[in-house]
Amino acid sequence: MPDIAVILGSDSDLPKVKEMFSVFEEFGVSFEILISSAHRTPERTKQWACELRGRGLKAVIAVAGGAAHLPGVVASYTTLPVIGVPIETALAGGLDSILSILQMPAGIPVATMPAGKSGGANAALFAIAVLASTDESLSGKLDEYRQKAARTVMDKNEKVQALGYKEYIKTLEKK
Amino acid sequence: MPDIAVILGSDSDLPKVKEMFSVFEEFGVSFEILISSAHRTPERTKQWACELRGRGLKAVIAVAGGAAHLPGVVASYTTLPVIGVPIETALAGGLDSILSILQMPAGIPVATMPAGKSGGANAALFAIAVLASTDESLSGKLDEYRQKAARTVMDKNEKVQALGYKEYIKTLEKK
Amino acid sequence: MPDIAVILGSDSDLPKVKEMFSVFEEFGVSFEILISSAHRTPERTKQWACELRGRGLKAVIAVAGGAAHLPGVVASYTTLPVIGVPIETALAGGLDSILSILQMPAGIPVATMPAGKSGGANAALFAIAVLASTDESLSGKLDEYRQKAARTVMDKNEKVQALGYKEYIKTLEKK
Amino acid sequence: MPDIAVILGSDSDLPKVKEMFSVFEEFGVSFEILISSAHRTPERTKQWACELRGRGLKAVIAVAGGAAHLPGVVASYTTLPVIGVPIETALAGGLDSILSILQMPAGIPVATMPAGKSGGANAALFAIAVLASTDESLSGKLDEYRQKAARTVMDKNEKVQALGYKEYIKTLEKK
Amino acid sequence: MPDIAVILGSDSDLPKVKEMFSVFEEFGVSFEILISSAHRTPERTKQWACELRGRGLKAVIAVAGGAAHLPGVVASYTTLPVIGVPIETALAGGLDSILSILQMPAGIPVATMPAGKSGGANAALFAIAVLASTDESLSGKLDEYRQKAARTVMDKNEKVQALGYKEYIKTLEKK
Amino acid sequence: MPDIAVILGSDSDLPKVKEMFSVFEEFGVSFEILISSAHRTPERTKQWACELRGRGLKAVIAVAGGAAHLPGVVASYTTLPVIGVPIETALAGGLDSILSILQMPAGIPVATMPAGKSGGANAALFAIAVLASTDESLSGKLDEYRQKAARTVMDKNEKVQALGYKEYIKTLEKK
Amino acid sequence: MPDIAVILGSDSDLPKVKEMFSVFEEFGVSFEILISSAHRTPERTKQWACELRGRGLKAVIAVAGGAAHLPGVVASYTTLPVIGVPIETALAGGLDSILSILQMPAGIPVATMPAGKSGGANAALFAIAVLASTDESLSGKLDEYRQKAARTVMDKNEKVQALGYKEYIKTLEKK
Amino acid sequence: MPDIAVILGSDSDLPKVKEMFSVFEEFGVSFEILISSAHRTPERTKQWACELRGRGLKAVIAVAGGAAHLPGVVASYTTLPVIGVPIETALAGGLDSILSILQMPAGIPVATMPAGKSGGANAALFAIAVLASTDESLSGKLDEYRQKAARTVMDKNEKVQALGYKEYIKTLEKK
Repeated sequence: MPDIAVILGSDSDLPKVKEMFSVFEEFGVSFEILISSAHRTPERTKQWACELRGRGLKAVIAVAGGAAHLPGVVASYTTLPVIGVPIETALAGGLDSILSILQMPAGIPVATMPAGKSGGANAALFAIAVLASTDESLSGKLDEYRQKAARTVMDKNEKVQALGYKEYIKTLEKK
Repeated sequence: MPDIAVILGSDSDLPKVKEMFSVFEEFGVSFEILISSAHRTPERTKQWACELRGRGLKAVIAVAGGAAHLPGVVASYTTLPVIGVPIETALAGGLDSILSILQMPAGIPVATMPAGKSGGANAALFAIAVLASTDESLSGKLDEYRQKAARTVMDKNEKVQALGYKEYIKTLEKK
Repeated sequence: MPDIAVILGSDSDLPKVKEMFSVFEEFGVSFEILISSAHRTPERTKQWACELRGRGLKAVIAVAGGAAHLPGVVASYTTLPVIGVPIETALAGGLDSILSILQMPAGIPVATMPAGKSGGANAALFAIAVLASTDESLSGKLDEYRQKAARTVMDKNEKVQALGYKEYIKTLEKK
Repeated sequence: MPDIAVILGSDSDLPKVKEMFSVFEEFGVSFEILISSAHRTPERTKQWACELRGRGLKAVIAVAGGAAHLPGVVASYTTLPVIGVPIETALAGGLDSILSILQMPAGIPVATMPAGKSGGANAALFAIAVLASTDESLSGKLDEYRQKAARTVMDKNEKVQALGYKEYIKTLEKK
Repeated sequence: MPDIAVILGSDSDLPKVKEMFSVFEEFGVSFEILISSAHRTPERTKQWACELRGRGLKAVIAVAGGAAHLPGVVASYTTLPVIGVPIETALAGGLDSILSILQMPAGIPVATMPAGKSGGANAALFAIAVLASTDESLSGKLDEYRQKAARTVMDKNEKVQALGYKEYIKTLEKK
Repeated sequence: MPDIAVILGSDSDLPKVKEMFSVFEEFGVSFEILISSAHRTPERTKQWACELRGRGLKAVIAVAGGAAHLPGVVASYTTLPVIGVPIETALAGGLDSILSILQMPAGIPVATMPAGKSGGANAALFAIAVLASTDESLSGKLDEYRQKAARTVMDKNEKVQALGYKEYIKTLEKK
Repeated sequence: MPDIAVILGSDSDLPKVKEMFSVFEEFGVSFEILISSAHRTPERTKQWACELRGRGLKAVIAVAGGAAHLPGVVASYTTLPVIGVPIETALAGGLDSILSILQMPAGIPVATMPAGKSGGANAALFAIAVLASTDESLSGKLDEYRQKAARTVMDKNEKVQALGYKEYIKTLEKK
Repeated sequence: MPDIAVILGSDSDLPKVKEMFSVFEEFGVSFEILISSAHRTPERTKQWACELRGRGLKAVIAVAGGAAHLPGVVASYTTLPVIGVPIETALAGGLDSILSILQMPAGIPVATMPAGKSGGANAALFAIAVLASTDESLSGKLDEYRQKAARTVMDKNEKVQALGYKEYIKTLEKK
């Protein structure tokens, strides 16, 4: 049984959150994916959400854009931790997705992640942090991941110092 | 069997849309009210929505604020016309409610009404317009309602002309 | 006589709502199109709006962007159900269009649809829902449409499961 | 015949723009007021707008809030200069009124004034500036008005210097 | 001496408002252009603004983006009618330009035009409307311009009717 | 050792999230509170954040408004799940708080809760959901809490049905 | 000669930034205040701004709301550091003031402070930081101020721990 | 020892603020660059910030986007003047970056620059203005820079006058 359940309202959102899947694979965390809409397949979404805890899942990630009801609808059928990822839209860069996921009423929590590319990665990392609260090996891996990210930043800094900013900018602009 | 179904996510929204009920009463249109939340009583909401067409209802009005999923959730379970009324909130005066109701994906339409006091009244008038498309007597009443509203505006104009704007403003400020 | 009247303030908006027309054709619902502006051809717009009910139309869809007055202006001359479709603009993705259509005063209802591509499709589906309230055959077609949309989502889900998310994303990115 | 025509969509907006009327009186500029709505009395509004130039009016001020179509509707029926005044609302302090008045399509200009209290005063001053382009006596009065306003600012500055800022703030807070 | 003065804060804004110049040429209205910034050449801007009335100009158009102070700064030095044109920016499509031009304090009016392409055209038309208040020939030309614009809309409508919407959309998409 | 750590940037935010504390007490979940600012006591905040996992805490809730950096700063020093609660402000009802907490870069996740009163309650419920992923008794209590919330909604609905909406609204308005 | 020049567009803004003055007095930093508007007294504002450097001032603080041009106008006449303080308004809590001050073109920098009460205090502290870059005694006082602010936060934390959060909240609510 | 410290949260922001570096070079002002994140390398960022004053730096520029905490975090560890540069994002063109940097609490000032290309240049110019408050040679260079910028604007104006606007626009559109 996978630990993390991921639901997307539309298959077209898969590439927009692909960092989520690479993070899970990097950490060796098992996950399942369901394409199911809050509005077009409400019954399917409901049944899946209702069975999550019974099937042993530990947390859910729901990805949606626009009137992004999916995270809230899933949260209304499970008491597992629900993490919402807003997809960027034309409306001020996803303000509709953000507010539809974020502004839940008291009683039904949804944990909202950033809109845009960092949303997918952070949803995975947050889900792993939830698992890590009782899994020391995962918690160690989170530390290593942070240290690696820090080293990456510091390596880039060293390259800027070595090359000088002018050369470094040229390198970036070539890409 | 009433013609119009009204669902509110919270009883505290009842006074905010009370013009809706007076409009229905003025037109002699029957309606039922359900307090049921998209998130706190999802099963109840779903069942009610699923049975609406079978029970002979003609249109649904769903009232909600914040991450206002109720209209969309109802629309995912019925093909009756669903009219959404956004409640004003602290977030820019209800921008969260508006966008959560409005930005529905293709396939599941929700008709959004204005936030604020005119939302309740207009939801009722729009529902009546739906009924009136096959009910000439209602259609006549809509015409009369419009004419009455026009006369009210013109009466106020006449009072402004008669009193002069200074006296008229004083009258308003006394209230 | 067609059932649904569609008015657009500018011919350049036609391609932006073309899903509206395909939905009507898929359902076999007759419609007429008028290009007429609230501001540039106000007299033409007014006459057309005034005659809609008398000519037997059942509902109106008005499409406009920016200071999108067209739906409200049409609604001021007819008591038929008026459905407004906001066109996306540079201003925060169409916030100007949305608010100009949505925030109507009490007494003159306009039913606002989402900005962007789903606006056209949902306006048609909502208009059909209005017709379906007294047309069982249309109501049956709406059910079938929903089921087809649900099957499409579920088929996509099956493909994701069959291919695995990595292959599926590659497929999407090839397009 | 008055020089300036003022139209308000609702009598309740009269006190919100009362500085407009005092400015006109201070300058001795004649004006007429009409309460007439773009949506509730469209025919009345249209006729009035159509006759303005013929009756010798020189400019129009239209005051409205929410889906504030009145200035644009008036502008669609006259080529006189149309000045729009957006009323503050709950929606982000009147962003709906502002955008509905401002974002007019090419061909039908509306001159938008600020939302809030300065909107009324500035609409009057702008209308007077229009008249003053061919009336030297008005143009001289505009200069005097500016000088008086400048003196008021400078007098306040002198009081702040004389009293010291602490005493001056106390004086303000007493009010 | 030209009738209309146009000031732009940056030469790069010239192409963004080029419809303004074609409108003036179509109407045979004379205008002058100055590139001068509120912030980079404040003294130049001030002198020019101070001399406008004396030189016989009738109205000013000021074009600016971002912290778009130019219209307000010009208005602080002249009592001629000042018309502001906000340039679209990355910030929500020009919300910064709009609010910086629009929200002037009481006493110093600026007439704000729409952001985007229609801003330039409408600024010219509004300036012409100001001139037309005492120039019957211009007023007649404004009427003709409106009628021509109306005919253009109606011609397009006729083509849509003749071709059918499908062919018409193809024609648009070819462009 | 308590399970949940709560940090607030300002003591004045305590009453704004008091529902958080009642939820924890209702569930018998232990928590500690620290008043410490990201900006005014950065060293204190850092040390506390660094020691959380070592001290056996399971999740952190960080409450802040305006440039609400506290959740992100805490998240930069711990790999425990960090839950951010945005305080409502004058800026569009807390849009500054929301975006400052939400838009975290890839690598450092923060789970954002709604602004306003429901933020405090939902932060507690979400933290409990995290604990419940390995604590069946808590998971059972979450189910009961949901059922109780559902019963509350349904009881209110029954009262509306029993009293009629008019009487019910009067009851609400008396409060 | 004072070190810091403060200009306010309106005397009514004095109480809104009074923390600015107490900070200056606490640090023993001399300042002068001028009430002068960018728009109503442009000549006075210009002269004052032009003479600042010659008179030995070290930095300027400009306070304004709405179309808040004052900081930018001052910056266009001096190369001293200009600090802008946006006053809160009805428009989304001061978004107009913020964007009008912030979005300056390249070449004319203005340093924008937060809207609301912290704007006044932080403008003073930032101005002092500018002076402190060459005044070690001021730099020492800034350190002490920070330490005092940190102690205040920690004292409040101790009181919360001592009283318990329930009693502490009661204490706050009594005020 | 350089005078100005520049910190960027991500190396990818280097090209977005490259005008900053050319301004410093044009003025002969020395600067150092550090790539270090508020969230990914918090310890590195902190140490660097703590040592700035001791190492003799005079001001800091911090560049960040999204939940742009870097300027505030740096400001929490130094009393040097901190200048924040918001990077444009998809969210309404950088409204998240702007508000995260701007809305700092009382006590910890950050001077916010515009989002977009002018942010980098103005941050450098503002930092130079800080240095110039005690360096007459720099202050002279600032005056020259302003005069050069003014001449550039006036030269462009002369070209527009010489070529005529039509030719000039063509020249621009060729680029």
